[in-house]
Amino acid sequence: QETLMGKYGEDTKLIYELQDQGGELLALRYDLTVPFARYLAMNKITNIKRYHIAKVYRRDNPAMTRGRYREFYQCDFDIAGQFDPMIPDAECLKIVHEILSDLQLGDFIIKVNDRRILNGVFAVCGVPESKFIPACCTVDKLDKVPWEEVRSEMVGEKGLSPEAADRIGEYVQLHGALDLIERLCQDPKLSQNKLAKEGLGDMKLLFEYLTVFGITGKISFDLSLARGLDYYTGVIFEAVLLQQENEHVEEPVSVGSVAGGGRYDGLVGMFDPKGRKVPCVGVSIGVERIFSILEQRLEASGEKLRATETQVLVATPHKHLLAARLKLISELWDAGIKAEMLYKKDPKLLKQLQYCEDTGIPLAAIVGEQELADGVVKLRDVATREEVRM
Amino acid sequence: QETLMGKYGEDTKLIYELQDQGGELLALRYDLTVPFARYLAMNKITNIKRYHIAKVYRRDNPAMTRGRYREFYQCDFDIAGQFDPMIPDAECLKIVHEILSDLQLGDFIIKVNDRRILNGVFAVCGVPESKFIPACCTVDKLDKVPWEEVRSEMVGEKGLSPEAADRIGEYVQLHGALDLIERLCQDPKLSQNKLAKEGLGDMKLLFEYLTVFGITGKISFDLSLARGLDYYTGVIFEAVLLQQENEHVEEPVSVGSVAGGGRYDGLVGMFDPKGRKVPCVGVSIGVERIFSILEQRLEASGEKLRATETQVLVATPHKHLLAARLKLISELWDAGIKAEMLYKKDPKLLKQLQYCEDTGIPLAAIVGEQELADGVVKLRDVATREEVRM
Repeated sequence: QETLMGKYGEDTKLIYELQDQGGELLALRYDLTVPFARYLAMNKITNIKRYHIAKVYRRDNPAMTRGRYREFYQCDFDIAGQFDPMIPDAECLKIVHEILSDLQLGDFIIKVNDRRILNGVFAVCGVPESKFIPACCTVDKLDKVPWEEVRSEMVGEKGLSPEAADRIGEYVQLHGALDLIERLCQDPKLSQNKLAKEGLGDMKLLFEYLTVFGITGKISFDLSLARGLDYYTGVIFEAVLLQQENEHVEEPVSVGSVAGGGRYDGLVGMFDPKGRKVPCVGVSIGVERIFSILEQRLEASGEKLRATETQVLVATPHKHLLAARLKLISELWDAGIKAEMLYKKDPKLLKQLQYCEDTGIPLAAIVGEQELADGVVKLRDVATREEVRM
Repeated sequence: QETLMGKYGEDTKLIYELQDQGGELLALRYDLTVPFARYLAMNKITNIKRYHIAKVYRRDNPAMTRGRYREFYQCDFDIAGQFDPMIPDAECLKIVHEILSDLQLGDFIIKVNDRRILNGVFAVCGVPESKFIPACCTVDKLDKVPWEEVRSEMVGEKGLSPEAADRIGEYVQLHGALDLIERLCQDPKLSQNKLAKEGLGDMKLLFEYLTVFGITGKISFDLSLARGLDYYTGVIFEAVLLQQENEHVEEPVSVGSVAGGGRYDGLVGMFDPKGRKVPCVGVSIGVERIFSILEQRLEASGEKLRATETQVLVATPHKHLLAARLKLISELWDAGIKAEMLYKKDPKLLKQLQYCEDTGIPLAAIVGEQELADGVVKLRDVATREEVRM
């Protein structure tokens, strides 16, 4: 229990704990990543690629207007297994790029960094290793608060020296692409740091693969990206939507993160009794956020979205024809056609057609005495009012 | 909280209660019906048809071999709204019939009864109204234990008179179809009971509609069917799989229930501050049970089930072609084709083809130096080893 709670870093306080009637300690799922790692360890799975859409729970103050709930959906994609460097990592970024492009959510950028580079930066800035994780959590706030505030938290709360904080400040404002990677590889201090060197090598490889995918235009190597969670061990990334505030401002403004993830090579081993590691990389898509954006856009467009896929309403023009409707709808259902009928014994035809218009059902299949006698059905196009007997 | 717990009758003890850190009383979802009713009341929805597949929880002793878990999936279909009698009820039975037929789970029967008929039976047998629900819960055990045991629980635990129990015993062994409904309509005592009369009238209507659907062959009006839950107010039903034990036994043996449901017209009103009722009828499909039957059958057949839908593996015949694979897979993904590649820099061709055979991927798209130079791809049928350049 205690080790489980430890995996979420400062967010541990948001886990819904619960105590069942039998006295077992339990908690509601906080995310999909840690349970995934536990699943791999428990079932000795060393090789898997999967997605998972499910509910998670946060003991947070809900704020409906800002889309913060205590119960909400997450959508995760992960690749686990011992593979050659950065190939699965590049696939994760490709998927995020594809989702955000296909959904046409507007302009976006995917920030990429590496925990090893960040730790290298901390090391060359004179931060003791024991303070890497707290420093990392503080850097993570840079997308919400200005550097001055982050600096004062580093020096005050986290106990870093003002000099170390200032030197970190110089690094974390850097962002770019291959050019920046090359420059940091030449950095006299960083190039001497084993972890940073590894991270920069992999970052170069990643950009190579992303170039083949043709998606580097939306990727930014950004040293200020830290990600809050403790378990990341390598590449980390976060997709943010951009909004051009007005034409005179050069830099587009971030309007929030919609996806994030990274590499966590140590997590599965923490659940394995023998500590066997399974390297993993994965991404969590902010589906709730994305849905609310899509809903807002739909509302603004005034377009009506159908709530059902019903293709045809089975209708009758006069009384005493319930059996005829039941027989026809049964045949349509058996043929795999999505059909509905009103649950009334003798509904008025006008009411049935009105129902089609209200719910967007495009066709009405009408059977009256005449149609029954002739062995036909009258198929009516609700919009054009055209009818054919068939 | 207390009223919520009351809705499950004797099963209340199986609800996983929990107490969150803020001191709010909460419980894990026990089923999908009561939360559905609550949702309708809270959102003032008076008219809806929906299905829901989700997890529910039971504070029970798990028995993996018998498929009894503490966390498992349920699949519910419900129709809510004020409609003409038995039309939505017939649709629920049609759906159960369709699912069990289409999945070819073997022979089955859908038992149908009505709580009003059962209560009428209790009344004419001299059971006081306060003991209708306990009597109902006891009758519900008839599919698991013999009548003698049920009778002794009625007389002992539930305090019914031996005479009442014996008279109930005569009714609950009856099962049939329209003929039995007609007979009970003529029953001198039952025909005088208002509730039973209503129930029998609706049962006749239901059989009429099921006759139009052509599914009465699998439907049995069975007075021993009671269903354990308190909230049912009208028709109830349960689908059981049958197994012909051996040729000399006439009656097929039930091997367990795979679907069940009924009408619950009072449940939504219990959640509405003003007690506004929304009549509902619904069915719960035992998806876990059905999956385990399908899995067993698949295992017995020796057939191999593919775990992925991958259509093509992108492969290379020699070294230094990772970029070519990345480029091709990216094009295939963009075209909506389900493609995979090994996450290795320089995998052996044999290993890549072996992977196709192991995972059932039917095609390999191979790019070597020659193919790159010619601007083509070699498409290989993994099973036949046929190759075409395209």
